[in-house]
Amino acid sequence: MLEWCLGARRVRQVQRTACRGTLWFLSLLLTFVVLRGTIGAGKFGTPEQDFNEIREHLIHSRGRRVEPRRVLEEVQPEPESDSDQSNNYANFDISKILVDDEPEEKPDPNKPYSLGPKISDWDQQRAEWLKNNPEFPNFIRPNKPRVLLVTGSSPKPCENPVGDHYLLKSIKNKIDYCRLHGIEIFYNMALLDAEMAGFWAKLPLIRKLLLSHPEIEFLWWMDSDAMFTDMAFEVPWERYKDHNFVMHGWNEMVYDDKNWIGLNTGSFLLRNCQWSLDILDAWAPMGPKGKIRDDAGKILTRELKGRPVFEADDQSAMVYLLMKGRDQWGNKVYLESAYYLHGYWGILVDRYEEMMENYHPGLGDHRWPLVTHFVGCKPCGKFGDYPVERCLRQMDRAYNFGDNQILQIYGFTHKSLASRRVKRVRNETSNPLDVKDELGLLHPAFKAVKISSTVS
Amino acid sequence: MLEWCLGARRVRQVQRTACRGTLWFLSLLLTFVVLRGTIGAGKFGTPEQDFNEIREHLIHSRGRRVEPRRVLEEVQPEPESDSDQSNNYANFDISKILVDDEPEEKPDPNKPYSLGPKISDWDQQRAEWLKNNPEFPNFIRPNKPRVLLVTGSSPKPCENPVGDHYLLKSIKNKIDYCRLHGIEIFYNMALLDAEMAGFWAKLPLIRKLLLSHPEIEFLWWMDSDAMFTDMAFEVPWERYKDHNFVMHGWNEMVYDDKNWIGLNTGSFLLRNCQWSLDILDAWAPMGPKGKIRDDAGKILTRELKGRPVFEADDQSAMVYLLMKGRDQWGNKVYLESAYYLHGYWGILVDRYEEMMENYHPGLGDHRWPLVTHFVGCKPCGKFGDYPVERCLRQMDRAYNFGDNQILQIYGFTHKSLASRRVKRVRNETSNPLDVKDELGLLHPAFKAVKISSTVS
Repeated sequence: MLEWCLGARRVRQVQRTACRGTLWFLSLLLTFVVLRGTIGAGKFGTPEQDFNEIREHLIHSRGRRVEPRRVLEEVQPEPESDSDQSNNYANFDISKILVDDEPEEKPDPNKPYSLGPKISDWDQQRAEWLKNNPEFPNFIRPNKPRVLLVTGSSPKPCENPVGDHYLLKSIKNKIDYCRLHGIEIFYNMALLDAEMAGFWAKLPLIRKLLLSHPEIEFLWWMDSDAMFTDMAFEVPWERYKDHNFVMHGWNEMVYDDKNWIGLNTGSFLLRNCQWSLDILDAWAPMGPKGKIRDDAGKILTRELKGRPVFEADDQSAMVYLLMKGRDQWGNKVYLESAYYLHGYWGILVDRYEEMMENYHPGLGDHRWPLVTHFVGCKPCGKFGDYPVERCLRQMDRAYNFGDNQILQIYGFTHKSLASRRVKRVRNETSNPLDVKDELGLLHPAFKAVKISSTVS
Repeated sequence: MLEWCLGARRVRQVQRTACRGTLWFLSLLLTFVVLRGTIGAGKFGTPEQDFNEIREHLIHSRGRRVEPRRVLEEVQPEPESDSDQSNNYANFDISKILVDDEPEEKPDPNKPYSLGPKISDWDQQRAEWLKNNPEFPNFIRPNKPRVLLVTGSSPKPCENPVGDHYLLKSIKNKIDYCRLHGIEIFYNMALLDAEMAGFWAKLPLIRKLLLSHPEIEFLWWMDSDAMFTDMAFEVPWERYKDHNFVMHGWNEMVYDDKNWIGLNTGSFLLRNCQWSLDILDAWAPMGPKGKIRDDAGKILTRELKGRPVFEADDQSAMVYLLMKGRDQWGNKVYLESAYYLHGYWGILVDRYEEMMENYHPGLGDHRWPLVTHFVGCKPCGKFGDYPVERCLRQMDRAYNFGDNQILQIYGFTHKSLASRRVKRVRNETSNPLDVKDELGLLHPAFKAVKISSTVS
């Protein structure tokens, strides 16, 4: 028909033009699609399209609540056929969504446990790396090592309703201290090695972090039930220049008395070096759960003073390791008792008011403890070693005691050590930079950054 | 008698000697006591004394549990007469220890609300301070501003059992992103101004932090229900060099459509400058709770498209402020839609597997969102806007999606996006420093520190 109208030659011209036009159009379309995919819809798709995708989704996915917040009023709920449609958290059974997967693989009982392949030249490997990576120095300033604070908790919700709330307050507390002191945090919620579950889980984690981060000079392990109660106290790093492992404890209690609580492994410093890898390897063998850990527990109860009967724990194992191997390890272990790198909560928490009356932050010791450690409280579990009310009240007090030191920077304080409410203690001003907080924590000297690529 | 034995003169000599000796002894004793108090008991008291104090306390304070962990086996519990002695957390009624104090003071209804005394020369004050404090520079490196990420939650335990667990995972997620990107965190759990409770609480907090920390160049507010899902994406700071306020949103949706969800205030960047103080002052008036907030809510519902009826919220108020005052504020506000500074969870969470199949971290946009924000889920409350199961399952998936990017650094990954368990994906090696994680997050360029005291 077209041929008849236009003539054959003309039709062929039209056909060629149409063909080239089609090709051209397809190329353009393809280019558009590719570019859109690469650069992002926002640049090409209309904003309305992106927006409407959200809007449509809001319409079709909302639950039954009548008073929506950030959703459209005209939403009509469309229940999914095979899932719980309740918007009520109180009735929700969390076990529905806890996926347990297949059972853990059983480790080969004939294979001795190992934290990883033996490394014997870590100091050299690390020194080489530091030399080649000056933008990741192991010292932030002279006498200020790069420190990573490591802590963590179970990936499962706590077995009781308030446990996670105290874990949350505890990590906020650590965030505050570490921000002031230029320390980074690694919060672990992964079990890297099923054999080393429970208190032993820290060993594979620590080794992994040391080896992955040669720029870290000291790794500071801290239990989730330990809180900072002296925000102004800076660890005396220089004191430990000839040591690799710092724990709160007493030489006499470990080496002479062989007491199972002669030191505490709830808060300790470990230098990133070959020696530390070696002591981790020496520490680990009592850890693998099951028969090994149970049998080791019996040895520890027999060998250590005062230890109850239970499976091997990392702390008792360390006491044992040191008392048996003092010649091998002792000279690089610093059992610190001049300040509370770990402070047993029982003898501290009732004295906070007395401390506030008579002392000030920055002391770190019995007058104003660096760390208050709620050993035995176990707020994440079902049962603790102490009355629940005592533990929780005191954990609130310890948290507020530490938090007051942060709040005072900004002119606030808790209404009391028992209260989560705060009150103003310093008026606002139009010259905020003239204000100095009493503790000098606003811009503390230990926070100032100066690069040094000193490799120690 | 003495005088008779020794003679008067001799007695006087003895008396003088005794007197001097007494004085000397008293001085020594006083010195001892003072030193002990200053230096700490550990240096003077016997280690046994400190240790025994703990031991005695353990004996007399433990609860009824038969299988102690870190306590002595021979403990005999001595119940306190007027408190709950149960060691069982499951039965514990938390309301016992929630101290509510006296009621909040009612603000003067005749006094207009103010975030604080008017400041008009903040840029000059700040520039002066930065010049005088070069060890606290506002830029970590050229093009890398010092950023403080601010987030928070209520100081009360969540109203439902799992809420705090999700808050905990959320802050761990933020800790990970911020550690990689050299960003500090402030986790707030204090209500600084009772009038500005709820979503408005961020305004007084933000102002306080900006004014206290002139070294901060950008403050990044992020809701507690928002999570990082792209650990490799660095915010394009240079893009905002001429802007002071960056939110996810679309110009057309705000200025033309006046849509109440045309932007999102759940994750935004605010520069530390006079302009920002001014916009905070302009933003605040709809916030004070009670009649002001309720009436303002009616205005917002009337003026903004799609907004349901409820009290004024900060997001709607910002849409309103911008649409009414575009000339005043618009040129310094960047409504960003090229990547998900805030990403509405509803259109993202079902696509994670597709993302893992086709894309990679570092894109930040719909292909791999920087932030997945669970608006409306409200896991800390009693009711959300969506079915609980949907929210919690998806929050777990989003968390694992982000966490996988951290775990892969160390050779692990979650067994699935639904599972809290992890599995090894890279073997240990005796040359750990030869290992490069695929995403380059182990020692990322945006983490390297180089000091620049550039004042912008």
